[in-house]
Amino acid sequence: MTATAQSNKACDLILFGTKGDLARRKLLPALYQLERAALLHADSRIIGVARDALTQADYLELVETNLHKFIKEPIDADVWQRLKGKLLYVQVDLTKEADYLQLKDVTNPSKRIPVSYFATAPSLFGNICKGLDAAGLSAEPSRVVLEKPIGHCLESSKVINDEVARYFKESQIYRIDHYLGKETVLNLLALRFANAIFASNWDHNAIDHVQISVAEEVGVEGRWGYYDDAGQMRDMVQNHLLQVLSLIAMEPPARLDADSIRDEKLKVLKALRPINLQNVQEKTVRGQYASGFVAGKAVPGYLEEEDARPNSKTETFVAIKIDIDNWRWAGVPFYLRTGKRMPNKVSEVVICFKPQPHNIFHETYKQLPANKLIIRLQPDEGVEIQIMNKIPGLGETMQLQQSKLDLSFDETFQSQRIADAYERLLLEAMLGNQYLFVRRDEVEQAWTWVDGILDAWRINNEPPKAYQAGTWGPVAAISLLARDDRNWDE
Amino acid sequence: MTATAQSNKACDLILFGTKGDLARRKLLPALYQLERAALLHADSRIIGVARDALTQADYLELVETNLHKFIKEPIDADVWQRLKGKLLYVQVDLTKEADYLQLKDVTNPSKRIPVSYFATAPSLFGNICKGLDAAGLSAEPSRVVLEKPIGHCLESSKVINDEVARYFKESQIYRIDHYLGKETVLNLLALRFANAIFASNWDHNAIDHVQISVAEEVGVEGRWGYYDDAGQMRDMVQNHLLQVLSLIAMEPPARLDADSIRDEKLKVLKALRPINLQNVQEKTVRGQYASGFVAGKAVPGYLEEEDARPNSKTETFVAIKIDIDNWRWAGVPFYLRTGKRMPNKVSEVVICFKPQPHNIFHETYKQLPANKLIIRLQPDEGVEIQIMNKIPGLGETMQLQQSKLDLSFDETFQSQRIADAYERLLLEAMLGNQYLFVRRDEVEQAWTWVDGILDAWRINNEPPKAYQAGTWGPVAAISLLARDDRNWDE
Repeated sequence: MTATAQSNKACDLILFGTKGDLARRKLLPALYQLERAALLHADSRIIGVARDALTQADYLELVETNLHKFIKEPIDADVWQRLKGKLLYVQVDLTKEADYLQLKDVTNPSKRIPVSYFATAPSLFGNICKGLDAAGLSAEPSRVVLEKPIGHCLESSKVINDEVARYFKESQIYRIDHYLGKETVLNLLALRFANAIFASNWDHNAIDHVQISVAEEVGVEGRWGYYDDAGQMRDMVQNHLLQVLSLIAMEPPARLDADSIRDEKLKVLKALRPINLQNVQEKTVRGQYASGFVAGKAVPGYLEEEDARPNSKTETFVAIKIDIDNWRWAGVPFYLRTGKRMPNKVSEVVICFKPQPHNIFHETYKQLPANKLIIRLQPDEGVEIQIMNKIPGLGETMQLQQSKLDLSFDETFQSQRIADAYERLLLEAMLGNQYLFVRRDEVEQAWTWVDGILDAWRINNEPPKAYQAGTWGPVAAISLLARDDRNWDE
Repeated sequence: MTATAQSNKACDLILFGTKGDLARRKLLPALYQLERAALLHADSRIIGVARDALTQADYLELVETNLHKFIKEPIDADVWQRLKGKLLYVQVDLTKEADYLQLKDVTNPSKRIPVSYFATAPSLFGNICKGLDAAGLSAEPSRVVLEKPIGHCLESSKVINDEVARYFKESQIYRIDHYLGKETVLNLLALRFANAIFASNWDHNAIDHVQISVAEEVGVEGRWGYYDDAGQMRDMVQNHLLQVLSLIAMEPPARLDADSIRDEKLKVLKALRPINLQNVQEKTVRGQYASGFVAGKAVPGYLEEEDARPNSKTETFVAIKIDIDNWRWAGVPFYLRTGKRMPNKVSEVVICFKPQPHNIFHETYKQLPANKLIIRLQPDEGVEIQIMNKIPGLGETMQLQQSKLDLSFDETFQSQRIADAYERLLLEAMLGNQYLFVRRDEVEQAWTWVDGILDAWRINNEPPKAYQAGTWGPVAAISLLARDDRNWDE
C-alpha cells in the first residue's frame, strides 16, 4: 500500500524559483528525503529553473550545498548520487516566453507527467503558465503547484487564479497550504473519523468551544517590507488557521477523496458568520509587538525592526471569535489567535467539552473543570485528553485532580521519522492526489470572509494594540474570552 | 478537608478475631498506617479480642511481630509508640456471653464510639452481637463492621443479617467488600461523574459492551476445604464483581451520600436478567483448573491440591454474560470472568465503545477497531483510552494505528502512597461514612441472582470444564464472546 506500489508515475518536476528561499530550505531537502525513502519514481526528473546562467555542475553544487545546510543528518552519499542523476538545470527568464521553449527539450510529457512547482512571486504565475503552454506543457495530465500567497484580497486572488485558469483546469492545479501536509493536521482526520468516542461528541451538544492557537517566537526576520504589506491576518489566518478550522469543523465527508473533503471544508467557510464594522470591535483583537524579551533575550519592537516604517499599523497578532452558523456548531465559538514574538513556538487546537450538568463533587470542587482534547500540532506533536481523576488518599472528601492522558507522537512512533509537510505535499502532487491542496472556491471564500474584517479594520482605522514581545498578545485577547467566562488554555 | 479536621471522633475499635489471618495481615497494618498518617483520633483505642490468654505485653509483641512481617517498609518507632498506647487486649470466649462484660470496663460509649469489627467466622456474628448488647455496646451511635462471607446463599445470608439486625439498625451496620475501598474502584466514581466526555457516553448509544476481569495467579492457597464449599461464584462474583459492575452500570446518583449511591447500585442488581436452567448453558461458563504452569513453575490441578476431594465439582473459574434489563443498558452485555491460576494477577474493566457507523479508511482498515476505555484496578493501577491515530509516514493511503492515551496512577501520583483498601474502610467506619459499605438489600439482591445460577448448575449437574493452570480459563469462555463476534481484551 505504499506510494511506489500504486499510482506512482514518473514526473518531470519543474521547479520554478529553484534558487529561492523556499526551494533551498524546504523543497530540495524534501526531494532528498523522498529519494532516500525510495518514493521518487526511478524515471522522474527534477528540472531546476531560474534566470541565472548556471552550468549543470554549478547547479549540482548549489543543491548539494543547500542540502548540507538545511538537513540536520549527514547526507547519504548513495542517496545524493541517485538524486543527482535526476537533477537538471534550465536557465529561463520567466518573463520571456521564448525561454520556456527550452523546457521542451528536457521534458517528455508522453513518458513523464509535467509537474510545475511555482516557488516564485505570484506576480510571475501568469508568465509561467503562458510559457508552459507555449512549451506544450499545459495539457492534461500536467499539473501546476502554486505557493501562497494567492493574492492579497479576494480581487487580487481572482486575478491570479484567472491567469492560471486560462491554461490549466482546476483538476490540474495544486494550491499549497503547507499546514495541510503536517502529520498532526492529517491526524485530525484520523482522530475525528476513526474514533467513535470523538465523532459522536463533535458538536454543540458536547463541545463548549474550540481554541486554535498558532504562536510564533520569531519576529519579521528581515522581511519587514514584505510582511508589513500583508500582516498576520493575510499571512496566517486567511490560509493556515482557516484550513485547520475547516478540518475541525467540517461535516464528516462520505469518502476520503479530494472533492468530498474540500466540499465539506468549503461549507464551513461559507458558514462563518461575517465580521464587519458592526461587530469587528467585539469579535477581533489586533496587536503589534513592542520591544520585550523572548527566551531571555531583548528584542526590538515591530516598529524598531530593520527597514521599519515607524507609523505602520500592520498587525502582528490577531485574535478572533468566530461563530459558525450551521446546525453542528450553533452556539459554539471558535477562538483563533496567532502572533509573532510570542513566548514559544506552539500550534495547538483545544477542544473544550461542555462541563458536567450536575456536580456531585461540589464539596471539593465548586466548579468541575471540563474535559479537554488537546491536539498539539507543533512542537512535541501529540494528542492529550484532560480528565478528572480521584487523587489517591484518605481524605474524608473525594479529592479530584485534572490529569492528562497523553499520546506523544515522538514517544509512540519512535521508529518513525516525522516527514516534513513539504515531503508529503510534493509526493501527493507527483501522485496526483489533490485532497491536501486548496481548491479555488476555498481560497476565494476564505478571502471573502477575511476581507470583511480587513475592510472593517481599515475603515475603523484604530491602531493595533501594543503587546510586549515575549507575551501572549494584548490584554484584549484575554478579555475576548473572559467576557464569555472562558480562558485560553495554558 | 481531611478526616481529622471534620467528623473524626474518638472510637473504641473492638477487633474480634485479632489473632486471625485478616487482622494480622490487613487490619493491624492498616491501623499502623492510619496512625502514621495521623488519621486515628488521639483518644481512640484499639481493643484486640480473642479467646487466648494473653498478657498485654504478649499482645503488643504479637502485634509488633505482625507489623514487621506484613509491612514492607521499616516500622517507624514513634508511630509504633503512639499506636502501642492505643492497644489493649481482652480475652473473650466469643460463645460465652459473660465474657463480653469485660468490654464494659475498657470502653466508654459516652466518650468514644464503639466500633466492633467482626473479623471472625460468620457463624459467630450472632454471639458477638448478643455479647455486645449485654455489655451495653449495641445502642447508637455504636457500629459493627462485618466481614464477608455474609452467607452461602440468600437464605443463610438472611439468617446472619437477621441475627445482627436483632441488635443493630441498618444504619449501624458496615458490611465490608474490600473492593469498594480500592483507590481505582473509587476512581470509577470520579471518572464517570466528573467527566462529561464519559458521562454523556455511558449508555447503549455509545457503548457496545463491557468486560470485567478479575484474574488471580494463586490457587486455593492451603484452604482447599473452605474454598471448595464456596467456589469462585460465591467467593468473587457475588460480592466483588457484582459491586464493581454496579458502580459501572448505576445511574448517576444525585448526591455522593451512602444511600443515594446504594439506591442506584441496588437498582442495577434488580435489573440483572435472571439466569436459570433455560439459559445457564448459553450465559455461563464454569471451569476448574488442571495442572499446568504459572510463571514458569509447574503447579498441581485443583483436584490434586492438598486436602482435595478428588471428585469435587467446585468451579475455580466463572465467565458470565450478563444482560441488564433497563433503559440505559438495553442490548449492552456485561461479560464477567474471574478465576484462579490464571497467567497473571490482574483486575480490569474494559468499556468497549461502539464502532464508527461509517468507515472512510476502508482502504487501510476493513474494520476500524472501536475505542476502549480500560480501567486497571490492579496491578499498575490506572486508566487508558485506546484511540486510533494516523501513523506518521508518507504511504499513499492513510495508515492508522491503535494507540493508548495512558494515565498510570503510579507515575501520575508519585508522591502519593496508594492506601490499602482496608485503611480506607477502617477509617470510613470510624468516621461513620457508610457509602463504601454494602447495604443488606444489596447483599440479598446479589444472592438472589447468584442463587439462580448456582441452582441451575446444581440441577444441570455438569462438571466444570477443565483448563490448564496458567491459561485464561476454558475455551468455552472465549466462545462465550466469540459467538457475539467479540473478544476478551488482551
